Amino acid sequence: MPTLEGKKKAKKGNITMINEGKMRNALCGDLRLKDEGREVRLAGWLVTKRNLGGILFLDIRDRSGICQIRFDDPSLCPEVHNEYLLSIEGTVEKKPVANKKLESGEVEVKAISCSVISKSEQPPFIIADETDALEETRLKYRYLDLRRPILAKRLRTRAKICRAAREYLEENAFLEVETPCLNLATPEGARDYLVPSRTKQGRFYALPQSPQLFKQLLMVGGIERYYQIARCFRDEDLRADRQPEFTQIDVECSFLSQDEILELGEGLVRKIFLDAEGIELPAFERMAYWDAMDFYGSDKPDLRYELKMSVLDDIVPLSSFPGAKDGSFVRALKVDGYAEKASRKKLDALQLEARKNGLEGPLFLFKEEGGELLGSGLKFLSEEGKALLVKRLAPKDGDAIFLLLSNNRRKADFALGSIRIMIARELGLTNGKPHKALWVVDFPMFTYDEEEGRYVAEHHPFTRPRDEDLGYLDSDPSKVLAYAYDVVIDGYEAGGGTLRIYDPILQDKIFRLMGLSEEEVRSRFGWFVDAFKYAAPPHGGFALGLDRLSMLVTHTENIRDVIAFPKNLLAVDPMSGAPGDASEKALEDLSIAVVKKD
Amino acid sequence: MPTLEGKKKAKKGNITMINEGKMRNALCGDLRLKDEGREVRLAGWLVTKRNLGGILFLDIRDRSGICQIRFDDPSLCPEVHNEYLLSIEGTVEKKPVANKKLESGEVEVKAISCSVISKSEQPPFIIADETDALEETRLKYRYLDLRRPILAKRLRTRAKICRAAREYLEENAFLEVETPCLNLATPEGARDYLVPSRTKQGRFYALPQSPQLFKQLLMVGGIERYYQIARCFRDEDLRADRQPEFTQIDVECSFLSQDEILELGEGLVRKIFLDAEGIELPAFERMAYWDAMDFYGSDKPDLRYELKMSVLDDIVPLSSFPGAKDGSFVRALKVDGYAEKASRKKLDALQLEARKNGLEGPLFLFKEEGGELLGSGLKFLSEEGKALLVKRLAPKDGDAIFLLLSNNRRKADFALGSIRIMIARELGLTNGKPHKALWVVDFPMFTYDEEEGRYVAEHHPFTRPRDEDLGYLDSDPSKVLAYAYDVVIDGYEAGGGTLRIYDPILQDKIFRLMGLSEEEVRSRFGWFVDAFKYAAPPHGGFALGLDRLSMLVTHTENIRDVIAFPKNLLAVDPMSGAPGDASEKALEDLSIAVVKKD
Repeated sequence: MPTLEGKKKAKKGNITMINEGKMRNALCGDLRLKDEGREVRLAGWLVTKRNLGGILFLDIRDRSGICQIRFDDPSLCPEVHNEYLLSIEGTVEKKPVANKKLESGEVEVKAISCSVISKSEQPPFIIADETDALEETRLKYRYLDLRRPILAKRLRTRAKICRAAREYLEENAFLEVETPCLNLATPEGARDYLVPSRTKQGRFYALPQSPQLFKQLLMVGGIERYYQIARCFRDEDLRADRQPEFTQIDVECSFLSQDEILELGEGLVRKIFLDAEGIELPAFERMAYWDAMDFYGSDKPDLRYELKMSVLDDIVPLSSFPGAKDGSFVRALKVDGYAEKASRKKLDALQLEARKNGLEGPLFLFKEEGGELLGSGLKFLSEEGKALLVKRLAPKDGDAIFLLLSNNRRKADFALGSIRIMIARELGLTNGKPHKALWVVDFPMFTYDEEEGRYVAEHHPFTRPRDEDLGYLDSDPSKVLAYAYDVVIDGYEAGGGTLRIYDPILQDKIFRLMGLSEEEVRSRFGWFVDAFKYAAPPHGGFALGLDRLSMLVTHTENIRDVIAFPKNLLAVDPMSGAPGDASEKALEDLSIAVVKKD
Repeated sequence: MPTLEGKKKAKKGNITMINEGKMRNALCGDLRLKDEGREVRLAGWLVTKRNLGGILFLDIRDRSGICQIRFDDPSLCPEVHNEYLLSIEGTVEKKPVANKKLESGEVEVKAISCSVISKSEQPPFIIADETDALEETRLKYRYLDLRRPILAKRLRTRAKICRAAREYLEENAFLEVETPCLNLATPEGARDYLVPSRTKQGRFYALPQSPQLFKQLLMVGGIERYYQIARCFRDEDLRADRQPEFTQIDVECSFLSQDEILELGEGLVRKIFLDAEGIELPAFERMAYWDAMDFYGSDKPDLRYELKMSVLDDIVPLSSFPGAKDGSFVRALKVDGYAEKASRKKLDALQLEARKNGLEGPLFLFKEEGGELLGSGLKFLSEEGKALLVKRLAPKDGDAIFLLLSNNRRKADFALGSIRIMIARELGLTNGKPHKALWVVDFPMFTYDEEEGRYVAEHHPFTRPRDEDLGYLDSDPSKVLAYAYDVVIDGYEAGGGTLRIYDPILQDKIFRLMGLSEEEVRSRFGWFVDAFKYAAPPHGGFALGLDRLSMLVTHTENIRDVIAFPKNLLAVDPMSGAPGDASEKALEDLSIAVVKKD
């Protein structure tokens, strides 16, 4: 193989000086003391220009970083402005005083020539890590925004995550397979993006919400171990952490148990954080769904802090909580030393939060300095109730207690859980805390949909119920737990998966339980379930959200920070203006017309 | 990091026995003599069953291959049929006579137990490398087709190509960046797939035909080196080697010259063939576009065989070819020893081929045993013409000569070129020949479109004209050659690219030459050209067709052989039936309606 000129001459982090061509022989951000005396040819965009007592200093930027150029004779430098792309020749010299802010700050380049490669108009915002430009402006000029080193660095981290995932999965004999994007619409779940077919008049492809069905078919096909870093699409209303298109690290394998898959998935996530952030994650706890719900008020508990809730259902007979009845669920949260911080205003905000979750409350109690239990919640408790509370929560002086009651277990859990999160945020309990990852397992197989009057699958109808719960399928489907698992990091769902049903008889039973007739099943996914007539292997898998992982690793809450060309919250690309108009001809070819509404 | 059970216990090619779980402890195709005496637990699909004199033999298949199971007591084996998925325990024994057809053929497993994991109905075709099933049937049951080892192996090779490309590009400091799929429609080129927007009534996204504009914007954004293995979409009528969605290895970089990019691209292609096929490609010749056209009759010449054409324009004044005039183009092809093979029927077929390309001919001549030049073409040649022909082509006894004339250079080239290919195929000139790759360079910048009466860009309007040809922009645009290059392997275009214009003034000039007004430019791609106001770097890139590379490496002519779930020639997925119906509700949400055409 032909070796590339200058291959691996210098290496620094993931920025390698390889085959950089004749136009330059060094990268700005790579210059170090060891380069002193070296004659360099650089190309970079002008960041700043300063004339200090007849000496001209330029900072120029390329993909590796920034370095300082010095013109002892400013007349050697043509007229230049910010973001001009310059070609500079000179000699590396040691700086009298190092600039600690630059990685190349121990040296500067004494320029002997400078020419303009490409001119720039005045950019619409200042290109620096710290910027006060509106996000919409930055998205409109994303090609300028990308010159901000912090954004480029996030993209490099995202690429590192992909690389780590591929290395790990390929080492574990997973085969990368591409699944199609032009598919049949899925009958359940979120809204599909549709693509009109030109060759089949009046028919539509759907863009994939995930490669779910295809990866299962690959298992039927004997591929055994599949992965793909897959683009997925969901036509849902956007939130801060959602985009119309997103990417998942998608995995499926045959012949492994849930434990074996969790071990594999944990190894993958650990490798990602190690390679992309240099962080060794501690071993993943495994927590049952109902434990997560009851004690952390969430199916994605943030374990970076404790602040554990208590189950106090047995206090109901000892109390007169409004709305309480036999079988009500009571959750309690004790917050150490919070009594004096709980202002009227804060309590009102918590009240509001509970109402958002459809509940009254929370009841508030606190333990005075000196030992008395006080607060608005007190009046609903009998002496025995008070005693039980004290015994169970053991409040110290100054502690606060929040109590919530609901006749719906999930509602009680979620409502107090969201109060738990609010207080944790107020107290800064996550600040500076290391990542904490866990598996949440044993999700319920079904939820009873009150409106539709039927059981619906919690994950999807192909999820496999746990062997030990198969008996409940006939007696009490709500008790059936599934081989379903989520990986939760810092309170975010970073991914999840299930084992799948591979027995057509069990699959039929699940469909019937969900109230789907044979005809409905046939018309909705007959082509898929047919495959299971031909000896499907036991299989399961998971998907990790690449965007979410990138956000966690780069510590941003904004999904647009980890995507090169994101859409805004209206699903519009502010740069191109997409979506745009289609020509009459194009619509005619597709046999569709736009129907104007009001 | 947790180490995985049994990690790297056995390794064979790219099939590695890692963390295979408790359900099995070996893979079928991996068993070898060294495993003699080992107690194994296997899982595999039943390939064949034979009862020979009271001994039962099964062949079972997993992803690694096939092995033979022996039941000395057939009653240990339950009722099994082809494609049943079985779990088998037994001991590895040496076979008295090795089965050369199986990689595991030196051993067999003496079974002590067998159970059925999953039953199968009778599959609709026999699952073996050799199959006479119709392709449409295989596509409908693709999950069974994928069990054919030859198909799974092709997918493994495709994955190896991706891996090789990523390794090479990341080693060369290229950053993997994902570009969006929901874009603004491109105003030129092939037909886009459109995606109706729900949030912007009456507007449409377009799926990308390539990441072209985004990768250039990444260069403006200072990313400098980008790559992506990108899914692309084109709503064109399908041919055997086309699919509605396809994948390209997409590359762009700043600050490199064309030579430097070609060197980089050549290294990439060589690495792909080395890693995926174990083949060391010879260095790539570089051939100018017009040389490829004139001497091989194609801009993607197959250099696995010579069969070079000759330029005989100067024979025109010495001949009376029908339709000839001053400036006509004459191409000649001499085929060694072909005189006696050139039957009337074959000559008619070649005639037909020329007509398909819009030309009469070819004229046929041959040299008799003994030296006389004969044939239908002879009557158009003067004695001087004959002498010139003999001097130039130096035919030996038995050689045949084909002559073609056109007043259009490309037509003359292409028409004789396609005859060259027909004859090469007839003579089997490519059989067993090693791959031959080359760069075709110096493509014309423009083609004059007779119908539209204007110049159109040969590649795309952002292609950079060669520095030495800038003068022709004003005097004779048809003479301008571009920094444009294709990589051609075995007569197929495996990829190509260009340097891009980075100077807005030059870009404007090109637009004007193409007859585009400032307003048209603004409305079509104003958002894109705006970026070049902010100091774009010199940049260029290329894309390689992953599907085509996979076909070349796996030696198939059928693109569907290298795609897990392809569409048929009607752009339909015979498995799911996609595209399918959309619900009224879905169309209403999108503000579109289907317009029925008779």
